[in-house]
Amino acid sequence: MAAATRSLVADLRRLFPVGQVLDSIEDRTLYAYDGTSIKALPDLIVMARGVKEVATLLRFASDHEVPVVPRGAGTGLSGGSVPAEGGIALVLAPMRAIKELDAGSMVAVVEPGVITGQFQKTVEEAGMFYPPDPASLNYCTLGGNVAENAGGPHGVKYGVTKDYVLGLEVVLSSGDVVRLGGKQIKNVTGYNLVQLFVGSEGTLGVITEVILRLLPKPPAKKTMLAIFDKLDDAATAVAGIMAGGVIPATLEIMDQRSINCVEDYLKLGLPRDAEAILLIEVDGMAEAVEAEARIIDTICREKGVRSFQVAKDKQEEDSLWRARRAISPAISSARPSKIGEDISVPRSAIPEMIREIQRISKEFDLPIVIFGHAGDGNLHPNILTDRRDHKEMERVEQAIAAIFEAAVRLGGTLSGEHGIGLSKRPFLRMALSPETIRLMENIKRAVDPKNILNPGKIWGRA
Amino acid sequence: MAAATRSLVADLRRLFPVGQVLDSIEDRTLYAYDGTSIKALPDLIVMARGVKEVATLLRFASDHEVPVVPRGAGTGLSGGSVPAEGGIALVLAPMRAIKELDAGSMVAVVEPGVITGQFQKTVEEAGMFYPPDPASLNYCTLGGNVAENAGGPHGVKYGVTKDYVLGLEVVLSSGDVVRLGGKQIKNVTGYNLVQLFVGSEGTLGVITEVILRLLPKPPAKKTMLAIFDKLDDAATAVAGIMAGGVIPATLEIMDQRSINCVEDYLKLGLPRDAEAILLIEVDGMAEAVEAEARIIDTICREKGVRSFQVAKDKQEEDSLWRARRAISPAISSARPSKIGEDISVPRSAIPEMIREIQRISKEFDLPIVIFGHAGDGNLHPNILTDRRDHKEMERVEQAIAAIFEAAVRLGGTLSGEHGIGLSKRPFLRMALSPETIRLMENIKRAVDPKNILNPGKIWGRA
Repeated sequence: MAAATRSLVADLRRLFPVGQVLDSIEDRTLYAYDGTSIKALPDLIVMARGVKEVATLLRFASDHEVPVVPRGAGTGLSGGSVPAEGGIALVLAPMRAIKELDAGSMVAVVEPGVITGQFQKTVEEAGMFYPPDPASLNYCTLGGNVAENAGGPHGVKYGVTKDYVLGLEVVLSSGDVVRLGGKQIKNVTGYNLVQLFVGSEGTLGVITEVILRLLPKPPAKKTMLAIFDKLDDAATAVAGIMAGGVIPATLEIMDQRSINCVEDYLKLGLPRDAEAILLIEVDGMAEAVEAEARIIDTICREKGVRSFQVAKDKQEEDSLWRARRAISPAISSARPSKIGEDISVPRSAIPEMIREIQRISKEFDLPIVIFGHAGDGNLHPNILTDRRDHKEMERVEQAIAAIFEAAVRLGGTLSGEHGIGLSKRPFLRMALSPETIRLMENIKRAVDPKNILNPGKIWGRA
Repeated sequence: MAAATRSLVADLRRLFPVGQVLDSIEDRTLYAYDGTSIKALPDLIVMARGVKEVATLLRFASDHEVPVVPRGAGTGLSGGSVPAEGGIALVLAPMRAIKELDAGSMVAVVEPGVITGQFQKTVEEAGMFYPPDPASLNYCTLGGNVAENAGGPHGVKYGVTKDYVLGLEVVLSSGDVVRLGGKQIKNVTGYNLVQLFVGSEGTLGVITEVILRLLPKPPAKKTMLAIFDKLDDAATAVAGIMAGGVIPATLEIMDQRSINCVEDYLKLGLPRDAEAILLIEVDGMAEAVEAEARIIDTICREKGVRSFQVAKDKQEEDSLWRARRAISPAISSARPSKIGEDISVPRSAIPEMIREIQRISKEFDLPIVIFGHAGDGNLHPNILTDRRDHKEMERVEQAIAAIFEAAVRLGGTLSGEHGIGLSKRPFLRMALSPETIRLMENIKRAVDPKNILNPGKIWGRA
């Protein structure tokens, strides 16, 4: 380790309680990753226990011009919390208090390290509902969700993390602490900086407190599985459901290769020749849920569904979800590596986007599994590959670029819920004009003039 | 008129088609106002017919360091479009095309000058729904709504303008045109600058195109009126309705003075001794609407409602809305002037906030009518006064300050849907810390370094 780093560690150990400044190679290795396969060692790690410690650290880092990379649980899928340029990994996981659960105003005040799934359970026990449901919800943190604007299957009806963030406490790179927004649902007092920090991938400030909006818990729900011979019929069913006045709580799609992957893995008896499966959930008042399920049934039949099942109880509900939940383990076992993408297109472009991906799959001779959130146009094409095969990885890179090009051509963009981070950085200029990137860079410079916070992300050099 | 202005007019007339650069005193007077009583003459007016003209104007204004104040229909309620420091009033009303109505993806692409109410009608004829419903919807423009982040009664269930803006085309003060967001519902490609521009009150850029998210049209709705003897009972009914799993499409409250004002004006037979009326609307599937109306009925009865009516048809629905709709004309006829405020508090603070306002009303000996959006905590206290009475206006100023102080003390803020503009500028420091204001100013400087766009608003000198 360099002498400069040793001196930083010594200085920081004077500022922080014992055990909160780590620099062993084991610890540095532990915080070198996120949910991707990208790796970069931090020089040292600081565990934060409160806003004052975060402010102290940022003032210190600013004075010494050392990068600070905030992180929650490290489950991100774009390299956002990987310390690309070294520096300090700032671990916010120890800040895990649910400070307030205000049922009267239906808001919660939380620290950034609270685990999303545990928060959801606590909220539900209090008769309320926090909808954002990223796949990693049993591990990921609310602070990480806010920094990346995490989504999930509930997005189609309930929106994503940003739609629940009413207020933030943020520490700027100067060490200044700002409080943005608040418990009020409506607020037009100055610029909406809450939403500037949501999804800013740790590049503008460190989130130390979040005020979240909650909803009443929907009293009933119903789960349905619709199997279609033809992809286009599934897509017109999706459009028909929304046009029929129904906004499902989830509307997930699996393409033929997803179906076959899951079938190889679990032998659920899914039809291998079906081009698409829709997994649909409606929630709300019991009466509405019944009516909506009937409408969805009718629409799917009109669009030529092969089979349509409605879960009668919790057990059947779990069984219908099994196929969708099995996709990730199924594709992980299919080939040594998977590279999951996250494009977002206008809803009506879904069938064309799926066909484009299938064409790209043939062109580059790579199996690509497609599933995702059909209701809001956010698809996850997963390329099945082997990272050790450098020849194949060149084709993978080309296929990824082709997928992004197709998404942008169809009016879509690079990422619906994973962020740009490191992994989509080389493609940013496909989606954003030089003027738009310059505007973002100007704002970054205004907020973090020394470029201390998570440098090299979003628009850094590829 | 100053020679400098005459020279600007001559230069601009060379750049713009005949009739689009105006400088007569009649025209300048026409564009000196918004929906408040604040007045300031622009030096000249430019009518814009497209993004290229807006870019030309902003480049010109930047070169000459002349303020530009964009405006839609001038219905704003905080002085946002009043040209406080003179300069050019940029009128976007001629840009009124609905460029696209995409039913498949449920999005619309519009120019900023489209009238909100006309847009809603067009959208409904296509079987869809655009919920934001500011009181001025028959006159105001979508561009103005975006610039001010306009709200309305639908906010409690459907959110406000910001929740429908997916994309923007914005001209920066440099003349650069940036496209932010797009037709995709989910988008985490770079910073969420769409939401930085929404509600920025014309101080960061000029909006030349808006991509709006639409919803399926709810197939049914039901309107209810609940009269309560006690304000606290009405407030606990509001909390009970939300906790009962029902999110009404509107949940409006009128206090006793609102009731009496309307009764003086219209003689509807409302009980003058009732402390509060709730106007409640639910929408969605017919079955859900029935069930929700029953739940609301039960909750209101449990909380001691004096009378509870459900509209059986469109005619009864209109009759229930009559009282709420009559408030504005009723209070306008009660005294020569009214000063409408727009505080936003956490939902549970509503009864306390109403009591605070009633206390302030007594303390300063001023009649204050209170109504607003009980479901989301956004209240409109209206002070009935006479602007010609300077002695009384001093008390009015003190009462306004006292109302803002109480709102902030109860965890709320200065404005839920009107914006800060000129009228709330003197009070900004009550709600935001110096660090937060400095951060906003830094961002303003980064985006509009010459301070061309709507100078003097939000945090300018009082």
